Amino acid sequence: MSGYHVAVVGATGAVGRTMLRVLEEREFPVASLRVSATARSAGRVVTFRGEPYTVEETGPATFEGVQLALFAGGDGASARFGRSAAKSGTVVIDNSSTFRMEPDVPLVIPEVNGHALRAHRNLIANPNCSTITMLMALAPLHRAVPVRRVVACTYQSVSGGGQENIDALLEQTEKLLAHRDLLLGRPEADQVEAVTGTPLPLAFNLLPQWRWMPGGVTEEEHKIVHETQKILEAPVPVSVTTVRVPVVVSHLIALHVEFSGPLPVERARALLGAAPGVELVDDPERGLYPTPLYAAGRDACLVGRLRPDPTVPHGLQLVVAADNLRKGAATNAVQIAEALVRDRLLSPAPR
Amino acid sequence: MSGYHVAVVGATGAVGRTMLRVLEEREFPVASLRVSATARSAGRVVTFRGEPYTVEETGPATFEGVQLALFAGGDGASARFGRSAAKSGTVVIDNSSTFRMEPDVPLVIPEVNGHALRAHRNLIANPNCSTITMLMALAPLHRAVPVRRVVACTYQSVSGGGQENIDALLEQTEKLLAHRDLLLGRPEADQVEAVTGTPLPLAFNLLPQWRWMPGGVTEEEHKIVHETQKILEAPVPVSVTTVRVPVVVSHLIALHVEFSGPLPVERARALLGAAPGVELVDDPERGLYPTPLYAAGRDACLVGRLRPDPTVPHGLQLVVAADNLRKGAATNAVQIAEALVRDRLLSPAPR
Repeated sequence: MSGYHVAVVGATGAVGRTMLRVLEEREFPVASLRVSATARSAGRVVTFRGEPYTVEETGPATFEGVQLALFAGGDGASARFGRSAAKSGTVVIDNSSTFRMEPDVPLVIPEVNGHALRAHRNLIANPNCSTITMLMALAPLHRAVPVRRVVACTYQSVSGGGQENIDALLEQTEKLLAHRDLLLGRPEADQVEAVTGTPLPLAFNLLPQWRWMPGGVTEEEHKIVHETQKILEAPVPVSVTTVRVPVVVSHLIALHVEFSGPLPVERARALLGAAPGVELVDDPERGLYPTPLYAAGRDACLVGRLRPDPTVPHGLQLVVAADNLRKGAATNAVQIAEALVRDRLLSPAPR
Repeated sequence: MSGYHVAVVGATGAVGRTMLRVLEEREFPVASLRVSATARSAGRVVTFRGEPYTVEETGPATFEGVQLALFAGGDGASARFGRSAAKSGTVVIDNSSTFRMEPDVPLVIPEVNGHALRAHRNLIANPNCSTITMLMALAPLHRAVPVRRVVACTYQSVSGGGQENIDALLEQTEKLLAHRDLLLGRPEADQVEAVTGTPLPLAFNLLPQWRWMPGGVTEEEHKIVHETQKILEAPVPVSVTTVRVPVVVSHLIALHVEFSGPLPVERARALLGAAPGVELVDDPERGLYPTPLYAAGRDACLVGRLRPDPTVPHGLQLVVAADNLRKGAATNAVQIAEALVRDRLLSPAPR
């Protein structure tokens, strides 16, 4: 079959499995496929286009003859193999945060800054899932009227923390349902731990569930601020609070935006209605607004609840929801690959 | 027994039952108790100080000889009986939104504006649960350095919608756990409705679950803005997005505040540490931050994640969590009653 020799690293994780599904759905021209993961997952079998593929342990050999590698193995795999694979000629699209802020690595949302791909040097970074979700709504507006400041509060699903967090949420939920007294009472940390295995469960709870940066900022908040500025190529001030919520898939973000000039709601609606990858869902009284449940499994970012913010000049409020495993990760990576093919930025497959 | 003749209206609901518990815990001087609700709940039995009380249907007779009535029966009961009970001499503390914005009705959080009780004319309103939660954190700071603008995003538990929403969340959660394919796939509204009974479930989802005001604002957002300005007696601009999250009890609010002058994090921490009713929970690296699970069943508002907001002059970010049935409703109402007793603003019980 004509096409490209492709590797998916971290193919057994929540994002890796979604990458295989999206490559298949979007009929990406895959001539051959190699799937890899850590030693722990080696030997497992995944399915692509109805055929079984055995997962190998990621190593230098994984990238031999491979033109395009999609990395979804987290910072570990990317730090270990990303640069060397790129150096030996494989174009790497990396979903980890390892290289995102490196000056020689384009950080790309195809609908927003696809032009940045032209300068790629075999290593391209996929932005953070919340950054992508926020900018899919913000960039079409920012291009029309520059953003002066944005306040963003995230409502992020547990799948952003990988399959183990999905499993943990569902398991903790079952256990707490069997101990409703804890949910309806005055739970103590040791009681909660005895039931769920942790004093800070994801189920029926809200957590700032990320590593901490100096100054009490979560790593996620830090990423959103800096990635936004790199992608928009402008020092847009972003004030953000990130919160993990007991939802399985899809992140929702509430945006309170201050523009540098007038942007009436109707014009914002028209701009978003015309923006590729965006679906306006904005008829609240009929129950039509972005929800994570209906963003899940879909590639579009759902945008709605557009309304003026009268507390600042040129203020606008809106919410956006997107599947963090798809547009927030796998779909965006595959769209980058498609753009590379379209713009002849990927070496053609050897015959 | 010496004390006051008390009635609790809506005594079978989530807030009404919590009122009875809080009156008991805080040893409010109850000489006699009458409990009422709608006809549907009349005849049920509730317990107070170990004694059974039969619920009667709320009517004019409910208030005969009653000095203090706590209303938790929603807008219906309050609109029907609130004014008339007050007129006939009962002091009414009303948890509904019916009278909150009436000029002759004090809207009171005792720690914030207890002074407003002095002007009461037998009818006092308890603020909205999110308003109380936000202002418990904001008011001590605002008194030191006036707030110029606040952006608030809420993460509100389902019990704010009453016992029926608690039941709905737990039931929908059970049903969706038994149909995980919907959570992990690409659910369609009719499939979701077939499993949960509604196309917009609370479980594993996020909803703007309130009535809509003109302009696409939720009723909850409208209340928070206007109640805040009435309580602070200042036109503080509040930009707010309200979201219902799949948590049983306690609301969490992320605040992005702009002050009119310098307010370093350390000073804010000291002000909040000294504020009555506030508990600082702010050592993130040790897992100490406000979560709804540990706010539940407690009267204190948990405040944490204090950090500078470098995107505006004098910016501060923080989160606050409080039990919406307690400090957000029942505890605040009972504290108002306590303040009335302490300040001799409630007629003494007849001998």
